[in-house]
Amino acid sequence: MATGTLPFVVSRHKVPLTCFLLMCVDLLHCQQFTIPFKAPSDCGAEEYFDISSLSCVRCGQNQLRSTTGLTCICKTGYRSIITEKASISCEQCPSDKPAVTTDGFGCIRCPGSLSDEGKCLCPPSNVLVERNISGNLLEEARCETCNGNISAFSVPSSSGDRCERCQASFINTSCMCNPPNVLAGGLCFPPGTLPTNVNPGVSYSQLKFSVQSAWFVKNLYSSSAACLVFSNLTACQALGNMCVMNMHSFSGVSNDACGLFNSIFRARAAVSSTQDISYWRANLPWLYYGDEPGLASRVLQTDPIPIGFSFRGRNKNTDIKLLAAVYNVRGEFLRWEQIGGDNLQLCPETATKQAAAYSFGTAYKESCDLSVAELLVTHPEPLFYDVFMDLGGEEDRKLLPLPTLVYNQQYNGRFINQESMKNWYLSRRMFLVDTLGGREKSVSSQPKVIRVASSVKIKFQLVPRTLEGQVFPPLMIVTYTDVPITDVNTQTVSTTFSMEYEMDQSEARVKTDTALGVLGGVAVLYSLLKTVSWKRRIASPLIDAGTMLKFLLFYAGDLANVFFAVTVGTGLYWLIFYKAQQFVSVLLPLPAQEEKFVTYIGCAFTLKAVQFLHKLMLQVSVDVFLIDWERPRSKANRTVQATGEPKRDPSPVSIWRTYFVANEWNEIQAIRKISPTFQIMAVLFFLEVLGFSNLALRDPWPTLVRSSQAYTPSYSLTLRYGLAATLWLCIGLLQVIFFTVFYEHFVEDKIRQFVDLCSISNISVLLLSQRCFGYYIHGRSVHGHADTNMEEMNNNLKREAESLCGQRGLLPNTDVQTFQVSLTNRLRSQYDRIREPLSRRNGPSRLIDASTANPFEQNTRAYHTMNHFLGSIIDHAHPDMDYIVKDKLMFERVIGMEFLEPSEKSIFYNDEAHSFSDVLFYGNEATLLIFDTLFFCVVDLGSQSFVLAAVLTYVQQMIFRLIRNFFGRKNLVNKTLVDERFLI
Amino acid sequence: MATGTLPFVVSRHKVPLTCFLLMCVDLLHCQQFTIPFKAPSDCGAEEYFDISSLSCVRCGQNQLRSTTGLTCICKTGYRSIITEKASISCEQCPSDKPAVTTDGFGCIRCPGSLSDEGKCLCPPSNVLVERNISGNLLEEARCETCNGNISAFSVPSSSGDRCERCQASFINTSCMCNPPNVLAGGLCFPPGTLPTNVNPGVSYSQLKFSVQSAWFVKNLYSSSAACLVFSNLTACQALGNMCVMNMHSFSGVSNDACGLFNSIFRARAAVSSTQDISYWRANLPWLYYGDEPGLASRVLQTDPIPIGFSFRGRNKNTDIKLLAAVYNVRGEFLRWEQIGGDNLQLCPETATKQAAAYSFGTAYKESCDLSVAELLVTHPEPLFYDVFMDLGGEEDRKLLPLPTLVYNQQYNGRFINQESMKNWYLSRRMFLVDTLGGREKSVSSQPKVIRVASSVKIKFQLVPRTLEGQVFPPLMIVTYTDVPITDVNTQTVSTTFSMEYEMDQSEARVKTDTALGVLGGVAVLYSLLKTVSWKRRIASPLIDAGTMLKFLLFYAGDLANVFFAVTVGTGLYWLIFYKAQQFVSVLLPLPAQEEKFVTYIGCAFTLKAVQFLHKLMLQVSVDVFLIDWERPRSKANRTVQATGEPKRDPSPVSIWRTYFVANEWNEIQAIRKISPTFQIMAVLFFLEVLGFSNLALRDPWPTLVRSSQAYTPSYSLTLRYGLAATLWLCIGLLQVIFFTVFYEHFVEDKIRQFVDLCSISNISVLLLSQRCFGYYIHGRSVHGHADTNMEEMNNNLKREAESLCGQRGLLPNTDVQTFQVSLTNRLRSQYDRIREPLSRRNGPSRLIDASTANPFEQNTRAYHTMNHFLGSIIDHAHPDMDYIVKDKLMFERVIGMEFLEPSEKSIFYNDEAHSFSDVLFYGNEATLLIFDTLFFCVVDLGSQSFVLAAVLTYVQQMIFRLIRNFFGRKNLVNKTLVDERFLI
Repeated sequence: MATGTLPFVVSRHKVPLTCFLLMCVDLLHCQQFTIPFKAPSDCGAEEYFDISSLSCVRCGQNQLRSTTGLTCICKTGYRSIITEKASISCEQCPSDKPAVTTDGFGCIRCPGSLSDEGKCLCPPSNVLVERNISGNLLEEARCETCNGNISAFSVPSSSGDRCERCQASFINTSCMCNPPNVLAGGLCFPPGTLPTNVNPGVSYSQLKFSVQSAWFVKNLYSSSAACLVFSNLTACQALGNMCVMNMHSFSGVSNDACGLFNSIFRARAAVSSTQDISYWRANLPWLYYGDEPGLASRVLQTDPIPIGFSFRGRNKNTDIKLLAAVYNVRGEFLRWEQIGGDNLQLCPETATKQAAAYSFGTAYKESCDLSVAELLVTHPEPLFYDVFMDLGGEEDRKLLPLPTLVYNQQYNGRFINQESMKNWYLSRRMFLVDTLGGREKSVSSQPKVIRVASSVKIKFQLVPRTLEGQVFPPLMIVTYTDVPITDVNTQTVSTTFSMEYEMDQSEARVKTDTALGVLGGVAVLYSLLKTVSWKRRIASPLIDAGTMLKFLLFYAGDLANVFFAVTVGTGLYWLIFYKAQQFVSVLLPLPAQEEKFVTYIGCAFTLKAVQFLHKLMLQVSVDVFLIDWERPRSKANRTVQATGEPKRDPSPVSIWRTYFVANEWNEIQAIRKISPTFQIMAVLFFLEVLGFSNLALRDPWPTLVRSSQAYTPSYSLTLRYGLAATLWLCIGLLQVIFFTVFYEHFVEDKIRQFVDLCSISNISVLLLSQRCFGYYIHGRSVHGHADTNMEEMNNNLKREAESLCGQRGLLPNTDVQTFQVSLTNRLRSQYDRIREPLSRRNGPSRLIDASTANPFEQNTRAYHTMNHFLGSIIDHAHPDMDYIVKDKLMFERVIGMEFLEPSEKSIFYNDEAHSFSDVLFYGNEATLLIFDTLFFCVVDLGSQSFVLAAVLTYVQQMIFRLIRNFFGRKNLVNKTLVDERFLI
Repeated sequence: MATGTLPFVVSRHKVPLTCFLLMCVDLLHCQQFTIPFKAPSDCGAEEYFDISSLSCVRCGQNQLRSTTGLTCICKTGYRSIITEKASISCEQCPSDKPAVTTDGFGCIRCPGSLSDEGKCLCPPSNVLVERNISGNLLEEARCETCNGNISAFSVPSSSGDRCERCQASFINTSCMCNPPNVLAGGLCFPPGTLPTNVNPGVSYSQLKFSVQSAWFVKNLYSSSAACLVFSNLTACQALGNMCVMNMHSFSGVSNDACGLFNSIFRARAAVSSTQDISYWRANLPWLYYGDEPGLASRVLQTDPIPIGFSFRGRNKNTDIKLLAAVYNVRGEFLRWEQIGGDNLQLCPETATKQAAAYSFGTAYKESCDLSVAELLVTHPEPLFYDVFMDLGGEEDRKLLPLPTLVYNQQYNGRFINQESMKNWYLSRRMFLVDTLGGREKSVSSQPKVIRVASSVKIKFQLVPRTLEGQVFPPLMIVTYTDVPITDVNTQTVSTTFSMEYEMDQSEARVKTDTALGVLGGVAVLYSLLKTVSWKRRIASPLIDAGTMLKFLLFYAGDLANVFFAVTVGTGLYWLIFYKAQQFVSVLLPLPAQEEKFVTYIGCAFTLKAVQFLHKLMLQVSVDVFLIDWERPRSKANRTVQATGEPKRDPSPVSIWRTYFVANEWNEIQAIRKISPTFQIMAVLFFLEVLGFSNLALRDPWPTLVRSSQAYTPSYSLTLRYGLAATLWLCIGLLQVIFFTVFYEHFVEDKIRQFVDLCSISNISVLLLSQRCFGYYIHGRSVHGHADTNMEEMNNNLKREAESLCGQRGLLPNTDVQTFQVSLTNRLRSQYDRIREPLSRRNGPSRLIDASTANPFEQNTRAYHTMNHFLGSIIDHAHPDMDYIVKDKLMFERVIGMEFLEPSEKSIFYNDEAHSFSDVLFYGNEATLLIFDTLFFCVVDLGSQSFVLAAVLTYVQQMIFRLIRNFFGRKNLVNKTLVDERFLI
């Protein structure tokens, strides 16, 4: 002990060796420090819980443990004696002074009986006196009656040891509340002020029962009476709170909390209303707006509040400043509280995220499940909030009371606030958690049921056509949930806090529908035109079911474009106007308002798919023939009849050039103007890596990078669609520009290469996409022969490069090699006749010919005949099937229809734009791009995942490319007779 | 008023018309309800705040507002009178009774002076008596002295209106603490127990100042003395708490909190220790473990705790049950508290997420910034936690005290706990927020500085080689941060709570390094073998710098494979063993332990890139020649000398077959055994859409779908790499299997198609990848001629299909068309001599020949010569450069080296496996796949984004494919003389 009082010099390594060894030994044999678990309640009646060693220790002699279990006290009849070390010991009181004084240190005689604890007992309204006025202990305690009559007005204090002045409401005559006066809640009321048969029930209509609430039993009558009789402000608030705890509900009876409140409200009609608001009577809280039908819409949608919200610029103002007057359940005013942080938000969240709720334009929603056990601890009593909006102003700060809609409020049994706005009954004041109203026996018992504000929503509505960010008074919608308490520790209750911003979308909807109507009409005309053009090209004047079907197919494509344009336009409109506006003038459509928009996208996608499949089918059934201009070199064989059997000559014309051209044609079937995979990757890169997807969040900030600490609102479907479609189209367009302007000029142009190849290989290509319409690529070699060795080929190429030979065009001295052709009916018939044996090959009538002729030879013969026939046509060798070459008119090009009908002569239109690529993917990039865009967006809207959309779009592209290639090749084999094995 | 008391019948539409109109009018002219903002403090001295109307209202006559501002009280010298409605009015006291009674309702004469409030004043240690014992008001108040002497022992009560017994420590003689006794903290201490010059400073060493804390000033001496002298349990705890508030720090002086604690600790050495733990003395809290060097590692790493953790199965046990004894700052024991929820976690989070911290194996970390203003409100006083681990047990529940490491603890100025474990000084008891210690003037003033536990980390260490999930006692590491208070409302303090799981990784590291060493050695041998093989194939026996470089290049590739195998193996090991284990036997490496692993991945990637670039360079410089077997059909021209100028004959051999073959060869340059884009998409789909990426989270659950409500731990680099690499390899392998087994058998096999094409087109291909080594594809047509028309081609194909002609092989009656060839030096020299004019074309010596000969003609001549020369070699027409055909030995195949040196005759090895694809991407799929895998993983490790990795991998593949195609085509043009325009 002596060393302990000396200054203790700290020295780490000067621990005595013995001590060190001792510790080591100690460490070895009881290394694992463990202690048994003991709680104060585990200790016996004569033990106390030692808070130092956390174990139970025996009390001293004649001692018992105290109620907390942490100390010992003397047994009944024993007084405490202080020992030297300020601890106690106990000594029995002598028999002449058998009672122990209240402080426990003395023994005393009692005037009356003893309590169980061995203290003196006095009758009620008496006080126990053990010491005289200067603190000396009396020999015998005295019981003194307090003088309750006039001038003294005293009653025993709560501790029962002295007389005090009694409560103010009693003091008319004495401290007794004699009948006919009514004693309630510690107050004395004059008779007849209020019927005493109040209904202290809290109605839990969701659970179909009501609870005789201990709190209401204790306070309802006294609060009402004190409010009515004494105009007690606190009592009035307490009464109002009880009505709020009943969810503002009226029932048929008028003696429940809200009924009483309304009685008093009526009684105050004569007194002038508070703050010039007729629903707010003096001394009373403001609980209800009026119950006239239609009042709600007048309050909510007539006058905008006098501040404007603005997202950026010098006047940036996005702070929603809310203020609440907070009352406790007893009706006491606690404080003005800034709403923000967690006062309306029950879900635990970081302050940054919670603050995001009060930033105008951020669609905030935070839900969570709360443990009931925790709620009982954190919310022993409800707090009541009268919420106002702070309108600012330096000197004269103004507040706007927020109308509240209690979703579960009943009005004579009807849930009027769940009906249309016309019937709404607005109110004020709300609470978050009420664990008090459901306590049945006493206010400290376990509640039978608790009531939680499971959804608090603050809804802003923009003034239509505002340019200054004006809004109507925001509405607070509160939904309460009743939770019957069964197992506190496992029960949870889910709760949501949200901010919603709405604007009237009917105008936007009308605009969209108008655009759709107008463009839809144009689409009808355009489709009709296409159908007419198609009828001409197949040279059939009849209007039959096929024509109708064709019209519908064309219309599908055009209507898809209309829907697409309108939806992308809408999406882009929201994206730009919402994210870029300074003063708030538009607000995003709510999810419920987006349904129609999504339907439009669905229509666009379906119709586009129909158009795409139609085009695909047309492409894989196009007629194609390769005309070989090469003639055998030995003169003797040059005059062999095309129809006759070709003789075995020593040097036949090699088929390899045809193979080469067919092979190349096969290869360019599915190439596109863009790289589809790069497209997907680029879009994914922008959306997911650069964070463009953040632009689709429901808040007004156009920032790409969000901190992980910040609140992330939900996505807007409209913005997501607008963003994805725009991005897809932009990147697609950039790619098209890059490929057509740069790549095809400086690196390689597959289409031009093919045309050049035709020319070099001395092979022309005739493509017939419709019966009498198609394309012709003139490939007659300017050198006469192409089937030659390397030396000559090189020479030819060199001569052409040096312009030493003729030009490649069909007409002399022209360069035009590609044409659109309108054939006469006669020519087409002849063509079909020659092709007959080929098409019959797959027909059902095969059995007939099988024995007569070798199909193989037949094919070859047909090939040679066709080659010769088409060659002679081009060479103007058939006067009855001649053709003329002319330019297409500008207008013909624009509307895609020929004015001249090829009745006598076929017409070859110069076509330097290589429009034969219309029968390839290459010439239909617009359709493909829009189809891909819609596919991507539809998958994304369904799954809310850009990655999934990208993957599925890739798979879709791959599948359609494979289909196109497979059927395209089959078609090529059928039509050109080139063996499939050479199309590799 | 009378109507108000009648039952009020609710009827919505029976509102009197006048009333309704009134409301409407009212609505119209003051539609926007706004009220001015008033707070109680805004009201004037004679106004009170009306809590109903939320405005200021004038008080009655002679009244002033009360301190709260919510009611009015009478002015000084005025007594209250109750009016009928229980409100008060005020009346001046008569001059003979100028004072107002304490309750405010009466007037009285005073024995002494009056206070400012107009009440009677008594001297200290006197009590003021205004009423007699039965409550009657006296005419004149009395001041009575309390009798403090023996037997009475009374002092005035706190309210000063009666005498009470004085505190136990005084009662030796009287209620006076006379010198030499020392009065402190309301206690009276005997003299000489403790020096009174204690140091009440709290040292904020981070801020380099200390604060004379009001709390310490008030309580340090009295607590120490009461602990030492009276063995007061609460006082001892309070003293301990003050030491904890000082972060357990010792300084040189012994009169600060921890110094005093240690003095008393020493003084108690004689008393037996608590719970058999030598560091825990009776009555004192356990604050320190011993200070022997090395004690920390003995405590933390000797004995495992007696429970095992298990992730699944019947004995699943992942709950970490922690329990804390909670004390308040006054040293009172509050309760046993289950750790969980938010008691150690300051960050607000939902209960579900917070509970995840106590699930074993989940690397939990939650950080946030807390507002200082909020901390001051929520933590007015610190709470102190003694944390134990609950070891369970039915009857005798055992607790294990958790050692705590206070990171900022000072020991004579040294931060010993930031040094190595040997020097650590473990302790116990912690707090979260202390806003009390930094209050300087009084305990209710604004603190000058607050101390927050900015990081609380609980660290588990697995017992090495355990199979039953045993761990050592967990360590709690607490780091405190001192925050000087400057601007409460804007200041924040960041805080972190984390759980860390660690195992000794040295064993794993040794295993990894051993594997690397062994495999690295094997790689050296294998690379040597490759180098030797290469030397043979280039027929150069010299070992020069080039050889060394080549060896290093080979070695890079092999070493890359070794690194790759080891890292993927490691990643997969962790993935499988960590995620699938039942009893915990392995724990993930911590981020700090992963550095070496990441380095290995970096090595693998770099080396693989070197190998890949090397292969790419070799591939685009391979020698290739197309041998055309076709001979002109007219007999007269068949004997034209190859070296002589070819005469113009009427039917030259067409070059188009060569073009066709070259074109196809060009097209298969960059095809692969898998679809690389599909690969990326599939990996992305699995990782991001199906949620495989969740497998890389630092928790033991192998579930793919995580609820958004659940806690998401951070990613483990090791798992991420293991997962991505495995997934990539698996999908790649599945693709290879699909393409080689299914697709190439049933749909199309580009390589076989090429070989077939060679055969049909009568063209052989000679590829020389090294100087004297290469591949030969025998393509001599079995029909003699291939340069023919469609009819004959079809016939030929048909005859071959019906096996009516010879077989395609090089040797008669064989089918083998593909060979590996080892050429003799002489053959290669002759080849080079013929190629000389071709290679010179691009050489620097071009100017010399430019005038003499047309390079165009020279090329063609060289081509013909080469064609003739190689044809005759194959035809065995050069006896001095003959060749033999043989099978390769099994062993030769395995090690990739030929045993026979081609000295006399060249050797053609049968090669049915089409190994010529080694000069294409196709034959190097393994290298490409591994390179892609590593590229993907490296990008992902750097960016933690699979999407970015996918996009960049796509771009990388695209770029290398373009490079390969571009240079491959250039090479093909150079070597085969085919015009570039035909390679489309």
